[in-house]
Amino acid sequence: MPGMTRAFETITLGMDDGIATITLNRPDKLNAFNKAMMEELVGAFDATDADDDVRCVIVTGAGRGFCAGADLSGGAATFDYDKRGGWNGAESPVGADGSVDYSHPAVRDGGGILALRIFASKKPVIGAINGPAVGIGATMTLPMDFRLASDAARFGFVFARRGIVAEASSSWFLPRLVGIGQALEWCYSGRVFGAEEALKGGLVRSLHAPDDLLPAARALAKELTGDSAPVSVSLLRKMMWTGLGMAHPMEAHRIESRAIWSRGASGDAAEGVASFLEKREPVFPDRVSAAWPDFADWFDDPPYR
Amino acid sequence: MPGMTRAFETITLGMDDGIATITLNRPDKLNAFNKAMMEELVGAFDATDADDDVRCVIVTGAGRGFCAGADLSGGAATFDYDKRGGWNGAESPVGADGSVDYSHPAVRDGGGILALRIFASKKPVIGAINGPAVGIGATMTLPMDFRLASDAARFGFVFARRGIVAEASSSWFLPRLVGIGQALEWCYSGRVFGAEEALKGGLVRSLHAPDDLLPAARALAKELTGDSAPVSVSLLRKMMWTGLGMAHPMEAHRIESRAIWSRGASGDAAEGVASFLEKREPVFPDRVSAAWPDFADWFDDPPYR
Amino acid sequence: MPGMTRAFETITLGMDDGIATITLNRPDKLNAFNKAMMEELVGAFDATDADDDVRCVIVTGAGRGFCAGADLSGGAATFDYDKRGGWNGAESPVGADGSVDYSHPAVRDGGGILALRIFASKKPVIGAINGPAVGIGATMTLPMDFRLASDAARFGFVFARRGIVAEASSSWFLPRLVGIGQALEWCYSGRVFGAEEALKGGLVRSLHAPDDLLPAARALAKELTGDSAPVSVSLLRKMMWTGLGMAHPMEAHRIESRAIWSRGASGDAAEGVASFLEKREPVFPDRVSAAWPDFADWFDDPPYR
Repeated sequence: MPGMTRAFETITLGMDDGIATITLNRPDKLNAFNKAMMEELVGAFDATDADDDVRCVIVTGAGRGFCAGADLSGGAATFDYDKRGGWNGAESPVGADGSVDYSHPAVRDGGGILALRIFASKKPVIGAINGPAVGIGATMTLPMDFRLASDAARFGFVFARRGIVAEASSSWFLPRLVGIGQALEWCYSGRVFGAEEALKGGLVRSLHAPDDLLPAARALAKELTGDSAPVSVSLLRKMMWTGLGMAHPMEAHRIESRAIWSRGASGDAAEGVASFLEKREPVFPDRVSAAWPDFADWFDDPPYR
Repeated sequence: MPGMTRAFETITLGMDDGIATITLNRPDKLNAFNKAMMEELVGAFDATDADDDVRCVIVTGAGRGFCAGADLSGGAATFDYDKRGGWNGAESPVGADGSVDYSHPAVRDGGGILALRIFASKKPVIGAINGPAVGIGATMTLPMDFRLASDAARFGFVFARRGIVAEASSSWFLPRLVGIGQALEWCYSGRVFGAEEALKGGLVRSLHAPDDLLPAARALAKELTGDSAPVSVSLLRKMMWTGLGMAHPMEAHRIESRAIWSRGASGDAAEGVASFLEKREPVFPDRVSAAWPDFADWFDDPPYR
Repeated sequence: MPGMTRAFETITLGMDDGIATITLNRPDKLNAFNKAMMEELVGAFDATDADDDVRCVIVTGAGRGFCAGADLSGGAATFDYDKRGGWNGAESPVGADGSVDYSHPAVRDGGGILALRIFASKKPVIGAINGPAVGIGATMTLPMDFRLASDAARFGFVFARRGIVAEASSSWFLPRLVGIGQALEWCYSGRVFGAEEALKGGLVRSLHAPDDLLPAARALAKELTGDSAPVSVSLLRKMMWTGLGMAHPMEAHRIESRAIWSRGASGDAAEGVASFLEKREPVFPDRVSAAWPDFADWFDDPPYR
């Protein structure tokens, strides 16, 4: 598993039978989020993208929590990025007179950097939410394709109770996933709610007994990818998520016309049709690392600035 | 309650315990909508925005109706804006030859002016729909965050039966709130339907006995805002509604990076974290009128032209 | 029925009581899709748009299938558009060295051409899905306003099992219709699923016994259009579908301001209000072919390039 052997401090990354499992691993702190965890999670998704043996990624938490949110051990200054020096250690965007230069590159939400990295994952991502998922612990799951939850899971978009606002690009994700009314109701009150309410509100796909959660996530991973061409799955992830934001179906048509021409001429397509006609299992030859198409710059994610 | 004492003719505006209640008040006409009501509603939201004591706004109707739609006392020329001189009294956009200059500023839907004003509200808005809500009476509720309905409520997107089209920016709101299929089904037929169908179709959040409607709306208002920082709630409203239309999560990340930097350095954030760690109720110092951030021109709503 | 008498080979087009019925008609091949069918379907929608007697369009399949997907009789090269000469017969976009010019006009998905034509239909479109709808047979139904399904219907977004990707602008349509999670789950696995799952997942509006399917579709068509002004219905279709992709409600307001001014001054509006006040059935004078408004170029669909 090249690139996946690096040592992590706040997470673990395992691999078995084509499924990578990322485990948030600060169990004594309910896996509270800090800058190191953000950077290591980004690195873990870089590794799963680069490894063609990885067909699907599961994200879960060690111990009884999923992620309790930002580590508050910094106390009242936790969210004061200037006093903390900013997420990226760059020169401060705060002038001598206290005014903030909001165009400064240091003014950047770390949760959003992670969310956009998960959004760009070339492999499907399943959240296996084993316990409390609060603040960034909740919003980091939104760019995952599916959220499976233990009966013991709890959720909270608690930002308004901490005097801050939602992050991790959740103002794009949350109203699309659960509807604007449900999104506002959870965000305004900031209250913590249980797994049943999350299921009813459309936040999670399915509930499971605690011991069944990871087996269910692994079974879903196999079902999703077992008979499908890896490059197709990877492109479909990008196309559907991007399509969700497009202004007009013509934009989808422009991308799809190139994608279907590109993949239609591939060995995967020849094998896909031949195996279907011959009523046998397909053996797809193409690999994501080599076959990711280069047919349109404007299919890439936009830059921060 | 500064700014809230002005006299209204077609509505009333009351205030109790941090909750402003706007009541459509032409009960002998089932609160039919006219130009005066549009302008007074815009004024009422200006007042609730400006008053820091207002944490939430409820909109309901006097008597047995919520709003029966456009006042049809003008007869067959009701929707002929040229013959009626236009909504804003400006010079006519109709030339001597009958041709219309559609770029003329008088060509503007009054329902849309109201809907966009509600969309821009800095306080959460709850519709308490006590009776028939038809035409603009239905579409004006769409930019509200939540629609609670009495069992006696009825709804109708009746435009196609009147030979006109839907308005009040409902072509943006309705398909997002209830899905494109349900939106089209209600709009094509133009039929009036009951509260149960509205609930099932996702148009309303919950149903209530007539006497329980306003108490339920007030209880929701308290639950939503009771433990939350006012500035956070206000920004979350803007962010989530705007995010619903953004093309890409990167756009949300740009806004959120500034918003979380700005609020993270605030007294609200310090109090939010400190009160959480000290297991006590927070007392948030910041007020919407003073602390509304000025970090990005492009976070403002676009102009009409 | 002018324009509707042309001979078709792969479909039939019938007309009865204001309802046009397009029937995919290659029953010995489960109505498998080919280039001729794409072009004939585009022609059929041109005809139903041009005929003012058509108030609604139903699309169904002959025999036991709806549409089994792309005709695979070409074998493993089915999706290799270069080898097949491209959909539009233009000069090949593939250079002597095998490199593809993705900006070449021949690089265009035929399913998307059809989907965008259905998207632009001036009449409501009801899919009456009588049997298997797989691949393009599934995605071509997404720009239809409503999908009614027989209990015998089956669906499959099977692209990843064939080594290709979803098309027909489905990356815009599918996540909006059923949510991103459900869209990805169906697309990743590529498995075929039954009518009940399609209903539960939000893909179809209602299920019907096989013999009841077309009667139910016809009853819905009458209910949707029976009391409504044809021009209003046509504009509402365009406005709501376009609104679903707009970035901000202000964009809807710009269109609606023009549309409501235009239709407000029409004979339809005068008749709609008068008939309502006189408690009688309306007789709307305007016809889609003559009254389609010309108030904004930017209301038109964007070009492919």
